[in-house]
Order: sequence, then structure tokens, then C-alpha cells
Amino acid sequence: MSTSADLSPDITTVAVPTHWYNLAADLPEPIPPHLHPGTGEPVGPDDLAPLFPSGLIAQEVTTERYVEIPEPVREIYARWRPSPLIRLKAFEKAIGTTSRIYAKYEGVSPVGSHKTNSAVAQAYYNHLDGVTKLTTETGAGQWGSALAFAGAQFGIDVEVWQVRASYESKPYRGYLIRTYGGTIHSSPSTLTEAGRKILAETPDTTGSLGMAVSEAVEAAVVDPEARYALGSVLNHVVLHQTVIGQEAVEQLALVEDGGADAVFGCAGGGSNLAGLAFPFIREKIEGRSDPLIVAAEPTACPSITKGEYRYDHGDVAGLTPLLKMHTLGKDFVPDPIHAGGLRYHGMSPALSHTVELGYVQGTAIDQDTAFAAGVTFARSQGIVPAPESTHAIAAAMQWVAEADEPKVVVIGLSGHGQLDLPAYAEYLERQQ
Amino acid sequence: MSTSADLSPDITTVAVPTHWYNLAADLPEPIPPHLHPGTGEPVGPDDLAPLFPSGLIAQEVTTERYVEIPEPVREIYARWRPSPLIRLKAFEKAIGTTSRIYAKYEGVSPVGSHKTNSAVAQAYYNHLDGVTKLTTETGAGQWGSALAFAGAQFGIDVEVWQVRASYESKPYRGYLIRTYGGTIHSSPSTLTEAGRKILAETPDTTGSLGMAVSEAVEAAVVDPEARYALGSVLNHVVLHQTVIGQEAVEQLALVEDGGADAVFGCAGGGSNLAGLAFPFIREKIEGRSDPLIVAAEPTACPSITKGEYRYDHGDVAGLTPLLKMHTLGKDFVPDPIHAGGLRYHGMSPALSHTVELGYVQGTAIDQDTAFAAGVTFARSQGIVPAPESTHAIAAAMQWVAEADEPKVVVIGLSGHGQLDLPAYAEYLERQQ
Repeated sequence: MSTSADLSPDITTVAVPTHWYNLAADLPEPIPPHLHPGTGEPVGPDDLAPLFPSGLIAQEVTTERYVEIPEPVREIYARWRPSPLIRLKAFEKAIGTTSRIYAKYEGVSPVGSHKTNSAVAQAYYNHLDGVTKLTTETGAGQWGSALAFAGAQFGIDVEVWQVRASYESKPYRGYLIRTYGGTIHSSPSTLTEAGRKILAETPDTTGSLGMAVSEAVEAAVVDPEARYALGSVLNHVVLHQTVIGQEAVEQLALVEDGGADAVFGCAGGGSNLAGLAFPFIREKIEGRSDPLIVAAEPTACPSITKGEYRYDHGDVAGLTPLLKMHTLGKDFVPDPIHAGGLRYHGMSPALSHTVELGYVQGTAIDQDTAFAAGVTFARSQGIVPAPESTHAIAAAMQWVAEADEPKVVVIGLSGHGQLDLPAYAEYLERQQ
Repeated sequence: MSTSADLSPDITTVAVPTHWYNLAADLPEPIPPHLHPGTGEPVGPDDLAPLFPSGLIAQEVTTERYVEIPEPVREIYARWRPSPLIRLKAFEKAIGTTSRIYAKYEGVSPVGSHKTNSAVAQAYYNHLDGVTKLTTETGAGQWGSALAFAGAQFGIDVEVWQVRASYESKPYRGYLIRTYGGTIHSSPSTLTEAGRKILAETPDTTGSLGMAVSEAVEAAVVDPEARYALGSVLNHVVLHQTVIGQEAVEQLALVEDGGADAVFGCAGGGSNLAGLAFPFIREKIEGRSDPLIVAAEPTACPSITKGEYRYDHGDVAGLTPLLKMHTLGKDFVPDPIHAGGLRYHGMSPALSHTVELGYVQGTAIDQDTAFAAGVTFARSQGIVPAPESTHAIAAAMQWVAEADEPKVVVIGLSGHGQLDLPAYAEYLERQQ
């Protein structure tokens, strides 16, 4: 028995996007190109061919405003997309605000994070080029498990180097990678030259994404059958994530005539925040709304708020092209905070560029403030947010508390934290 | 950019049910009453009052066909309900069947299982009666975490006794309970007389749900502010779970004119299978369709396929009323299989009754067959099923493989297995 009235505060009635949105086409200045580390010249397709399939190389430099999502990718997206835009009534009540707060929730994907949006696309384009093996790095494991899932969809073997701090403290995402048929190593490992060199110099290192990138890139370069996949930072990754923001803009329009006053997302490599925010920047450029857009990063790894905007390598060994970005320096090793996905020394060049253009601002949140926000969120809404996402929640809480009138706020909830529960347990013990 | 065409194979367009469905009202014979262990007479409201609030006691014996879902409960349900009915195209392809297989997926709830459907209702009725503390038992931890979440919604403290085998091998659900503000103990514990007695006799026991029930019941009885909550077995729990089947019947009707040919669900205490199946039995009784309904249980704990149908206690210490059910005997301690939610010696009296009336049949699946099905499911669909749910998947796979024509099948996917990943890792290692 049911009535036709629908109580659901989850807004899912919009369709799965047919295209990815390329903000670069709408910006007054182009995103600075990636440079070849040897020549200092912009990298061309031939430079990238040992690492990436042709479809992704084309997307890295495309000037098209919309890029069509291939049907096989869209069909897999449709298993969980559109992801819900959830009105957080219980959370609003818990924090005592009259603002209307929405979460765009990517935890509904099979692996529980936004990473699947790019993983499926990357596996597809590699499959098109006949690639049978992909190597990658992962922090907390969201990206590695997403790529393992995507690889299983297209018959591609996936080999993952996971940052040691996360590999040791959070084994579940490694189990997940194996369940999908993938392989996982702790990084730095003895399997690559880059790893052996780092271990010789700093045997007790907790690892870093920059180190793990070096290992995965090297493993791809030495194997002609293999290619490399990056889970954030690059333009094509950001492009894939724009399904998030496109849906959110459409969903919000169904319930809020004025659009958003502010959009908050966590930023590690930047693809989550950029994927949510870029369609909102399109709204700004076209004059439909003018939200504040905030990238919430950890105080332990504050690339936007404390880093320099300059060309730097994406990895420790200096194997990647030079990227124009906010960076703490390729050798920066952040404390082993629980938000493993935010422990990256640099920031997406596309997102960095929008920061420089004034569309996005950064804010840094310390770990305990983030977890306190996560616990409040879990006890009210029920969803346990990923430690990364708690940074965005905390930043939004601070902003609505300081606002002088009720606001409409969208929080990017990049994933759930069910596989990060030891981090919550540790935080709660520290509070006793 | 999007078109109005919707690719999504998830069927979520039906509304959240307004009522729970009480199959008892439609059966030719009543469900045998629970008996007082002292007098052998049917238990009355006064007997149950130390354990349960008045609203739930009324539901335990109601003869109403539909029981209205209170608005506060329905509002919380609406955060994730209707749960999706997913056409499993990738899984169908992986197992090479032309049958059309659907999963009714309860893993979208905040804690990742169907248990929230009853937990929220039970917390609500206790809150109505002014109860401030609930005690309960849990196996793998789905029920304990669901009740901890529900308690947080209504300001009720939740104290959980978890079966030792699961407490030690799968700590994440314990962390989840703490994140929601609940308390958790390994069972048997030294906190109760029942626990101390069991530990004195069998200090190395892996625990059982029957033991944990004894501890939680005792803790509620000795504390006048506290009540007890049971996560399965009883009529009111089964009643709450009928939101699953009501939605599934409606959702399936949108895409399959003839309804289902078969419905598979895993059965431990029985509430998951009954919640899915009872609305399908209503369809049988009213002549709209005639699906085979299968309760998949583990060979390690085969209460329907190997147990006796008789009156037995729900717990080891004999504190609960006598229940007419399929039972392996209250002292039965199953092997510590990973499907902790299926390690219960008895079976819901309501479900047992429908087995006796011929509406439901049991089948037993061994653990490795279940995990093999789970891995095939994960690698194709992406969703990692709860170990409990893999029993239903395996049973459905066997049935469609033996069918002589394409069938329409509904599998009850009671939850996801993200917090049970060590079990998958162990299974995969055994296969190498």
C-alpha cells in the first residue's frame, strides 16, 4: 500500500548526463599546458602515448565544451547515477541552522566513492585501445578499488600501489581490490626502481601519493601491454567527474529557484571538488547564480592555502610531466592523517587555474574538527561520511554558523566512510 | 546535458509504503502463539511488557491486514526507501543465463542492510513509551549497527552484545556502533549472569546468537528504564520488513507483466526473507502470480531443511517465550561461518508457519558455494553482497541453471558486504 505522494528528500528524478562538461571552453584564459620535463615544451600526444590511451589524451587537451559519454560508460553509470541530492534535514536540526543544506552523495557507487566516475571511463578508453593491464596508485584506496571494479567490467588486469600508511591501517580496501580480481602492493615497494630507491633512503617512510605515482608510472612504462591510470589531478579525470555537478545543478533547480549560495567540497588532487563545482562555475559565468565555491583541504596538506602556484612534478621521482598547480613541493610527505585521499602535494591544474581566476577559494580544516563534523553527520543523517568528505562538512558548518541569514548550501559528499571506521573509532577514543 | 531518456535499470519510481503488510490476516490458519515458558499458556501483553513497548506488543498479535507506518518512521525510511530493484544485466551475462534476474537491494540504507527497517520502527515505539535505553544482540553486526543508528535518531542509548566470533573477526561494525554513540560488548560477557555461566562452562566458545539474546534480555529485565529489541524472528519484526516486498511487487509490475517466477532470500532468523516474500505470498493468495519462494540457509545452520518444527526457546538460557518454529535446538552452536546473520538456531514462527503451509521452501547452501556466487556478483555488478545475501544468489544461480526456459527471478539482496571484506579475502586465499 502506498500513496503517490513521495516523501523522499533524495532528488533523483533527473537523467544520467549524456555529456561531460569541459569548463576550459568557457574560461577567459586557457588552463596552462603540461610541460615536458626534459624540453620544457608543452607535452604532445606522443609524449603521453606510453602512459595513456588515445581517447584520454584527446580529452586532456580538448577545447570542446561538451564531450559525449560513450554508451557503455553511461550504461554502467546508470547502475547508480544520478546519485542522490539529499536535503539534510536531520543534520540541519542537529547543528541548529535555518539554512537549507544538501549533500550530493557519491557513496552510492559500487565502491562507495566518486572515483568510479573516472575509473569506468578510463577503463573503457583503455579497452578501446586494446590495453589489457592498468597500473595505478591509491591513497586510502577509493581510487584503487574503483579502478579494480572498472577493470573487471572491461576485462583489464589492475595492479595498485597503495600508500603504506593506508595499506597498513586500512586493509579492507585492499580486500575489495582483490575481490574485484585486482592486485595490490604497499608503496614504496621493492617491485620498482623508484620504490627501491625511496626505501633505501627512507626505509621507515609512511609513503605518499607522489611516491606511489612514481611506482605505478614506472610499472606501466616498462610493460608495453600496460598503461597507467591517474585517479585525480589531470584534466580528463576532472572532465569525467563533471557528471556530479551537472546532476547537482539540475537537481537543485527542482527545489531551489535561486540555486546555491555556496558549494563545498573536499580537495586532495581536486577532481571531486572540480567535478561538483565546474558546472556551478558555468552557472556563474552564464549569470544564473553566483555561489561561493570552497575547496576544503586538510591543514596537514594545504596545497591551495599554503602552497605555491608553479610548475611541479606530479610524482616524487619526477617521471610525470610538469603541471602548473598549487603545490607543496613533490617531496612533501604529509602526516599520515586518515583522509588518505587528501594527502597529495599538488592540486589539479584545472582547479588551481579556477582558484587563480577567483572562482574558487581554499580553506584548511584540521583533522579533529573534520571528524567532529563527521560524527555529528553520522548520528543525525545515518550516513558515515568518508574522512575526506568530513572536511567539506566542517567547512560548510563553519560558514552557515557565521552567515547572517539562511543560505542554500551544497556539500559534495565524495563517499561513505564504512571502510574508514577505524579512523572514527580512534577519533572517538581520543575524545574520551 | 541530459536527455529525458532514463537508462537506469534501478526501478525506484514507486512510493515509500504507507503501511506494513500483515500476512497473518490472509492465511487460512493463524500463526501458532508464543507460549509462556512457565505456564505453557499463550503469552499476553503483561508477560511481554518488561521486554517490549506497548506499540510493538500490539503488533506482535495484531490481526489487522495493514498497519499504518507512523509518519516519523516513514520520514526516516524515505532517506533511502524505496530501495532499488536492480535488473542484474551484468550478472546475467556473467553466468550466461537468458533469465531476467532482479535484486531488491537493501544495502542502500545508512548501515548497509535491511535491518534498519525494523530498527527505526522499534526505536520509535520505545521512544513513544519513554524508554531511554535499549539492549540487543547482534551476529555479524548488521542489526546492532542498525539499532544504534535508530537509537541516535530518537535519543535512545543502545547497548549491544555481539557474538564473539564476529566481534573478534570483524571489528568494523563495532566501530560503526560506537560512531553512532552506542556501546558494544563481546558475547558471552562477564556483564550478565547468563554470560558468566556460559563462560564458566565453555570458556572457549565462539558464541552464538542464542547466547547473546540471553545476555541482552537479562540486561533489559534488570534495568527498569531499559527495554529489549530483537532484530528478527518475532512477528512485529517481520511486519516491519514487509516494506521490502511491497515495494518489490510494485516495482516488478512496472517491468514484468507476469510478476516473478521465483523469489530467493537468505534466512537466518527469517525477517529478511519474510519481509521480501510475504507480499509475494499475498500475490499468490490473490491469484495474481504464483512464484516459487525459496529460503536459502547455510548448511552450517540449516534450521528449515534439517531442524524440527516445534516449540523452543529463542535463547540459550531459556528466558524468552517458547516459539513454534523450525529449530536446531536452543543449545546448537553453529560453526563460525562468515554469514554471522545466519547463525541462529531457530526461525521466525511466521516464516516457519508459511513453510508448513507450503508457501515457502528451504534450501541449504555451503559457504564456499555462497562466496563463489558473491565474487561472481561483485565482479559483474560491482556491488559486494553481504555474506548472508550470497546464499540467496547461489540458490538463484542453481535454479536458473536448471530451469528449462528463461525465468523472472527476484533475489533479496539483504545488504552489502563492505564490512565483511575479510571474509572475501579469506575465501579468495583458500582458492589459490
